[in-house]
Amino acid sequence: MSISTEAMVLLSCDNGIATMTLNRPQARNALSVAMMSEIEATLAKIAADPAIKVVVLAANGPAFCAGHDLKEMRSLEGREAVAAVFSQCSRMMTAIVRLPQPVIARVHAMATAAGCQIVASCDLAVAADSAQFATPGVNIGLFCSTPMVALSRAVGRKQAMEMLLTGHAIDAATATAWGLVNRAVPMDQLDDTVDSFARLIGSKSPHTVKVGKEAFYRQAEMGLDDAYAYAAQVMTANMLARDAAEGIDAFLSKRPPVWQGC
Amino acid sequence: MSISTEAMVLLSCDNGIATMTLNRPQARNALSVAMMSEIEATLAKIAADPAIKVVVLAANGPAFCAGHDLKEMRSLEGREAVAAVFSQCSRMMTAIVRLPQPVIARVHAMATAAGCQIVASCDLAVAADSAQFATPGVNIGLFCSTPMVALSRAVGRKQAMEMLLTGHAIDAATATAWGLVNRAVPMDQLDDTVDSFARLIGSKSPHTVKVGKEAFYRQAEMGLDDAYAYAAQVMTANMLARDAAEGIDAFLSKRPPVWQGC
Amino acid sequence: MSISTEAMVLLSCDNGIATMTLNRPQARNALSVAMMSEIEATLAKIAADPAIKVVVLAANGPAFCAGHDLKEMRSLEGREAVAAVFSQCSRMMTAIVRLPQPVIARVHAMATAAGCQIVASCDLAVAADSAQFATPGVNIGLFCSTPMVALSRAVGRKQAMEMLLTGHAIDAATATAWGLVNRAVPMDQLDDTVDSFARLIGSKSPHTVKVGKEAFYRQAEMGLDDAYAYAAQVMTANMLARDAAEGIDAFLSKRPPVWQGC
Repeated sequence: MSISTEAMVLLSCDNGIATMTLNRPQARNALSVAMMSEIEATLAKIAADPAIKVVVLAANGPAFCAGHDLKEMRSLEGREAVAAVFSQCSRMMTAIVRLPQPVIARVHAMATAAGCQIVASCDLAVAADSAQFATPGVNIGLFCSTPMVALSRAVGRKQAMEMLLTGHAIDAATATAWGLVNRAVPMDQLDDTVDSFARLIGSKSPHTVKVGKEAFYRQAEMGLDDAYAYAAQVMTANMLARDAAEGIDAFLSKRPPVWQGC
Repeated sequence: MSISTEAMVLLSCDNGIATMTLNRPQARNALSVAMMSEIEATLAKIAADPAIKVVVLAANGPAFCAGHDLKEMRSLEGREAVAAVFSQCSRMMTAIVRLPQPVIARVHAMATAAGCQIVASCDLAVAADSAQFATPGVNIGLFCSTPMVALSRAVGRKQAMEMLLTGHAIDAATATAWGLVNRAVPMDQLDDTVDSFARLIGSKSPHTVKVGKEAFYRQAEMGLDDAYAYAAQVMTANMLARDAAEGIDAFLSKRPPVWQGC
Repeated sequence: MSISTEAMVLLSCDNGIATMTLNRPQARNALSVAMMSEIEATLAKIAADPAIKVVVLAANGPAFCAGHDLKEMRSLEGREAVAAVFSQCSRMMTAIVRLPQPVIARVHAMATAAGCQIVASCDLAVAADSAQFATPGVNIGLFCSTPMVALSRAVGRKQAMEMLLTGHAIDAATATAWGLVNRAVPMDQLDDTVDSFARLIGSKSPHTVKVGKEAFYRQAEMGLDDAYAYAAQVMTANMLARDAAEGIDAFLSKRPPVWQGC
């Protein structure tokens, strides 16, 4: 089953796995305001669909995503118009982090600036060996200040600073070593690797996964005592939900669990 | 000299090095309420014993620790009983972090869920090549939300998310590359490697080590200015204590220091 | 063009690249109060000089920097005198982080205690293969509590704890793997590698680089929503400045940009 949406972002869904594909290949998937609006709308649709268990964020064309649409950006008039673009972009990136379902970036090619930020914002990322990652805003006088929010939460400070100050691209192997992506694989294994992650995560209780993903990013911002107080509450509620009872009983009885999603 | 305690946790002490051994091998050292209570009691005993300079946290049996005791967990009735278990577990993990003495995990085999959390909570960890690490709660509908508090403070976000969302185990080499353990060594070198760390740390001033460990975790939660203001106070007090005077004088005179422990 | 300053810290400037050289070789560049005062004065001079675009922090002699001056430290009388030294040191380290220009550590040899902290405090670091890094205060009864503020923000917790608790030195390859330095290169390539980074960063808009560096460390201390709100403001202001307009126009016209520094 495949649902087509607006042309710039494609959404298909198969067996609980949604694939959301950036589809502005001729523009290297540059994030125009219209493109970001479609991404936001697509994420809202996914968030509201209980049948979707996991999301693959892919892209068509020669680049994964080249970041903001510079021509459009230069045509904006006045501080408010510019501020609106960066606010929308930050809201879109946060929507990936806040999405109930895990998001796996499928990075087949270059991810630049806000494109690199998308990769950093996803829960997991799988890259083709030939993919590259850069935050080159410094080259055009526009430091990648919003991309660095996501980047600096994924890789070490000196490594983030190297990318931000030099503008140089790193290859997929380096991105894996630094923690920006989970796997770098030959291009012809990219889909299989992404599918393995997606199907595996799709086989878990969606309720459990949703609860866990939300708690992960919230506790990450807390001190140790607050984080434990919060996580203990989350885990207590999780334990009292049906899927944990079913999962534990199934495990103790050595049979596969049947999730009810609550 | 060896002090035996309750059966589920063994405590021995040799030359200032305490070895605390999880000893419920038939249950893969599952953390029943009784087991956690013994661990807490043992940690309290260690904290109060000025003769103990460093702690090795080891385990008997085919697993390092399999996490919570699922049978017991399923037999609990009502929210309060469940909440009490997760609160106790978080208190126990925090007690490792707050223990005056450094704790070295000696991981000879699989560490799972709250067992992986123990490893993440220790100050240092040495693993056998054959050891594995997993947070597989997602497989049984119970996301490893309290384990992730410790795990996400030891490894990068994408790497933590991979463990949490897939439930898959990582091997000791991967755990080393990701920062969860300090060393992965062949099984027949595990004790020597742990002992080297323990004897080395045991040779330092216990007062200095205690002051430093406490400050480490406190400053880690602060912004840069607050962290420096706090650490400068800690270091000033440390400098005015006897062991620093002795240590510096010994260093300048090229003789070994004699610690007084204050 | 070369400006000589006080003997303990040399400052030269060439084509927008300032090289600040610790020059107390016979004392392994130990950070006496006088030495720290010269470093602070030199940093203040650099901060105020709009012609300086990037800073290389280098050192003369057999060590990069051996940390505090222990003889002087032991001669201090009273809590206030000791506290003043650690406050000054923290202020100096923070001045590196707050300097408008990026700072690249050129580490040709051993960096110890507060010397290791300097490396951790710089934005980027390039090391000779033969360089080493240690926080050995624990060996002399004086835990490296202020160095760990910078160290624990550059490397993982277990790795920082290993350095702090054992006092052992790590080599440059390990420092690279852990994230403390960006590159480890053979000694005869050290200058070329540092120069490449410096010239590359020096070719960017100094205004953009200054804005980005400041924002990087500020957002790193915030939660995700605050970080995005702040970074979006920074990026909006950056976009409205002349150098971004010039940079984007130059990029779209495929010509090199001409920075005006605002």
